[in-house]
Amino acid sequence: MASIARSSFRLRSVTRVPTARSISTTPHLRAAAKPFFADEPAGPKLATAIPGPKNKAATAELDKVFDVRSLNMLTDYSKSIGNYIADLDGNVLLDVYAQIASIPVGYNNPHLTKVAQSPEMTTSLINRPALGNFPSADWADILNTGILKVAPKGLNQVFTAMAGSDANETAYKAAFMYYRQLQRGGPEKEFTEEELQTTMNNQSPGSPQLSIMSFKSAFHGRLFGSLSTTRRDAQEEQRCLQETERLIKEWHNPVAAVVVEPIQSEGGDNHASPAFFRGLREITKRNNVLFIVDEVQTGVGATGKFWAHDHWNLETPPDMVTFSKKAQTAGYYYGNPALRPNKPYRQFNTWMGDPARALIFRGIIEEIERLNLVEHTAKTGEYLYSGLQRLAEKYPEHLQNLRGKGQGTFIAWDTPKRDEFLGKAKGVGVNIGGSGVSAVRLRPMLIFQQHHADILLESIEKIIKQL
Amino acid sequence: MASIARSSFRLRSVTRVPTARSISTTPHLRAAAKPFFADEPAGPKLATAIPGPKNKAATAELDKVFDVRSLNMLTDYSKSIGNYIADLDGNVLLDVYAQIASIPVGYNNPHLTKVAQSPEMTTSLINRPALGNFPSADWADILNTGILKVAPKGLNQVFTAMAGSDANETAYKAAFMYYRQLQRGGPEKEFTEEELQTTMNNQSPGSPQLSIMSFKSAFHGRLFGSLSTTRRDAQEEQRCLQETERLIKEWHNPVAAVVVEPIQSEGGDNHASPAFFRGLREITKRNNVLFIVDEVQTGVGATGKFWAHDHWNLETPPDMVTFSKKAQTAGYYYGNPALRPNKPYRQFNTWMGDPARALIFRGIIEEIERLNLVEHTAKTGEYLYSGLQRLAEKYPEHLQNLRGKGQGTFIAWDTPKRDEFLGKAKGVGVNIGGSGVSAVRLRPMLIFQQHHADILLESIEKIIKQL
Repeated sequence: MASIARSSFRLRSVTRVPTARSISTTPHLRAAAKPFFADEPAGPKLATAIPGPKNKAATAELDKVFDVRSLNMLTDYSKSIGNYIADLDGNVLLDVYAQIASIPVGYNNPHLTKVAQSPEMTTSLINRPALGNFPSADWADILNTGILKVAPKGLNQVFTAMAGSDANETAYKAAFMYYRQLQRGGPEKEFTEEELQTTMNNQSPGSPQLSIMSFKSAFHGRLFGSLSTTRRDAQEEQRCLQETERLIKEWHNPVAAVVVEPIQSEGGDNHASPAFFRGLREITKRNNVLFIVDEVQTGVGATGKFWAHDHWNLETPPDMVTFSKKAQTAGYYYGNPALRPNKPYRQFNTWMGDPARALIFRGIIEEIERLNLVEHTAKTGEYLYSGLQRLAEKYPEHLQNLRGKGQGTFIAWDTPKRDEFLGKAKGVGVNIGGSGVSAVRLRPMLIFQQHHADILLESIEKIIKQL
Repeated sequence: MASIARSSFRLRSVTRVPTARSISTTPHLRAAAKPFFADEPAGPKLATAIPGPKNKAATAELDKVFDVRSLNMLTDYSKSIGNYIADLDGNVLLDVYAQIASIPVGYNNPHLTKVAQSPEMTTSLINRPALGNFPSADWADILNTGILKVAPKGLNQVFTAMAGSDANETAYKAAFMYYRQLQRGGPEKEFTEEELQTTMNNQSPGSPQLSIMSFKSAFHGRLFGSLSTTRRDAQEEQRCLQETERLIKEWHNPVAAVVVEPIQSEGGDNHASPAFFRGLREITKRNNVLFIVDEVQTGVGATGKFWAHDHWNLETPPDMVTFSKKAQTAGYYYGNPALRPNKPYRQFNTWMGDPARALIFRGIIEEIERLNLVEHTAKTGEYLYSGLQRLAEKYPEHLQNLRGKGQGTFIAWDTPKRDEFLGKAKGVGVNIGGSGVSAVRLRPMLIFQQHHADILLESIEKIIKQL
C-alpha cells in the first residue's frame, strides 16, 4: 500500500475581530421558547466541589484497569438529560462539549430510546453481520432511510466504517486505488505480476509512493495513515491557493487527493472563506486530484447547515465526504462509481461499520427533521454569537478572535489563560472544551436553545471575573 | 509517528499429513446430545437455487448505494437461528463461516437478546460516551465483569478499540511509544523541543523510523499501519527462529515489537508448534522487543482454549494481546503499566470502542461459561477432526494437509479445486469459507455440536463427489 507524505503549506486562518457596535448595555431577552426536553433541569446544579468524593473513588477504581489520565469526569448517564450531564456526586452541568462534539440530540433522548428498544436494534446487536459479505435484507433500506437520506448533494453512495479515523483512511485508500487505476488505464486493466509481487514487500509499483495532501493544523485521526495527515500545531500563516497548486504539480510523491476540514477543529477552530474552498475544489478538479472533505466534527448540523461544506456553494461536489461523531456511525460518501475499487475485497474488512449504530443515526436524523434542528441551530448560533460579541467588547483581554459567525453554534475564541478558563468552568456549572493551544471551543448539541445560551453567557462572564 | 517496515522472514508452516490409521470404515455415531438451541432446524433447508430470485432482486437494489461485489448472501437475520443462517428465498444453511469467524454463540441467542434489551444497553446506545474523557460510572464494572474477566493470564489492563485493525494499530502505537520511552531514559523524561518540532513533519527524532516485525502470510488488518504488517501471500517456507533474532538485531529500522497470529488465519491457516512460539517469546524478551499476539480471529474459544496462545504454556505472558471478532468489540490487553504512554492523550480517540458492544461481549462470556463452550468446542473439534481424517483417507486428492488437530474447531485443509468446492457448498446446505489460495477453513460457532459436525461431514462428502 502506498505510503503517505504531506505538504508543508498552511491553510490561511481567518479570525474575526469583534465589531465595535456597542450593544453590550442592551439587556438581552430571556428566550421563552419551549424546551425540547420537558424534564430538563432549569439550570446547572452544584452539589460538591468537582471532582467530588464519589467521582474520586470511582476514578481510582477505574485506574486499575483503564488509563484515566485523560479522564474529564466520570458520568452518571442515567441522570444526564438533554443538554445536562451529571456526575456521581449530584453535580449537573450544562454540557457544551457533548462528548467531543458527538452527541447531537441530547442525553436520554426519548426518540432514540425507542430506536434502542426496537426489534431491529436487537437483531443488529445480537446478529452482527460482516456487512460486505452478509448484509441483512434491510441494509439497503436502513442506508436509504438513514445515512443516505442526508448524503451531501451529488454523493449517493457510501462506504461504511467504524469511526472518524478509519472513515478517513478508507477514503484515502479509495483515492490511491482510483489514482493508480487512472494511471493503469482504467478499471478493466489487470494488475501486473510485478505489481502483485512488489506489493507484498511494500515496494513500487505494487505499493507506489503516493500522497494525500493535508493542511497545517489539520486533524484527521490518530491511526497510522490518518495520523500522518494530522498536525496539531497551532501556528498559522497566510499562504495562497497558488501554492497548493504548485505543490500538487511538484510534490515528489504524486498527490492522489487533498483532504481538508471545513473548520479545522482540533487544530484550534481555524476558519477559511467559502471562496478559499471553492478555489481548492477548482484546483483539485483542474489537476485530476480528488477532493476529500473531512466532516467528522463539522457535519450533522452544528454549523447551521447539515454539512458545513453546504456553506460553500460548490459548483461540483467533493469527491468524498467523511463523517462520524454526531452521526454515531462513520464512513465516507461518494458519487463517482469509479471510486469503487476495480475488484471486490480491495476495500473490505469484517464488520465495515455497525448496523446498530446506523440505526441510531437514522433515529438522530428523524429527530433533527422533527424538530427542525439544523435551522434551529443556525438561529441559536446567531443569538449566542451576539452575546459573545458583547462579552468580547466588555472583556477584550479574555475573549479574543471570536470566530464562527454564521456557522451555527460552532463557535470559538482565544483567551490567554485558556487552561485556567477551562479549569474553572465546572465550578460555575458548565462542561466546556478547548482546542488548539489557546482556543475555547463551543460544541453544544443541536437541541441547545436560547435559554441555554443565556446560562452559558452568564457562566462565561462568571469565569472571566474569576481570572 | 514512526513508520512501519517489516522483515522478510517467514513463519514456518506446519502442515499435517493425515495418519494412516484405517478408521474410515468405522461408522461414526450420531451424537444424541441435546441441542443448545431448542428451536434450531434439524438440518439445512434448500428452497431455491442460491442466490434465489428475492436475493437477486434485493442485491440489485443494494448495489445502487453499496458495493456488493464482495457480497456472499443477503441474510434474513430474523429467520437465522443458532448455527443456521437464512436468506430471503427460504434457504437455510448450516453456517460454519459465521460472519468471518465472528459469531460465537449463535444467531438470535436468547441470552444476548436479553442483554440487547436491557436498560444498560439502551443507555449505552443513546448516550455514547467519549470513553477516555467521560466514561460511565459503571465502566470499570463493565470491564471487570466482561472484557477483563477473560483477560489472558498475566494481562490485567485493556485499551478498548473498535475492530481488529485499530486494535492492532493502537497496540503498535503503544509499542513505539514504549520503545522511545526506554531510549529516552524513562517515562519522566520530557520530549525535547526538537522532537516536538520534527514530529510535525513526520521526521526523526520526533517521528523515528521504527519497525513492527511481522511474518510472511500474516494478516493483521487493512488500515495503513496494520496493512503494512499484512501479507496475503500463500507461499510458505521453513525458516528458523535464529533468523528472527538476527533480523531483530540487524534490521535497519529498530524493531519495537514482533506481532504474530497463533494460527495465520487469512493467510491460509498456517500453524506452528508451541515450541516455536515459546522460542519467539524468549527471543523477544532477550532483545527487549515487545511480543504482540494477534488473537483477533483465534481468540474467544474456537481453538478449544479461550485464547489460542493458552496452548503454548508460555513462561512469561505476551506483552499485548489483541482481540476482536467473536468478542464483538475490540482492543488490546496488557499487563505492564509502562505500556500506558507517559502522557495522557497520546493514546486516545473520541470513542475508544463502544460500551454497547462491550456489553454484548459480557453476555457472550456469560453464555460461554453457562454452557462450558470452550471445553465443548475442544471436544467437538476432536470429533470433527476425526471425521475429516476419515474423509481425507477416502478422498486424499480432495482433502489434503488437514490441520488444526487439538485446536478445537479451528480446522482447515487444502484442496486443488478450492473455489469450485466453496461454490458448491451452498447447494448442499452449508455456508463455508476459504482462506489463503487453496484452503477451506472451518469457523463454526462455539455452539457447534456433534450432530452439526455429522451434517457438515456428510455435506463435505457430497461436495467432493460433485467435483
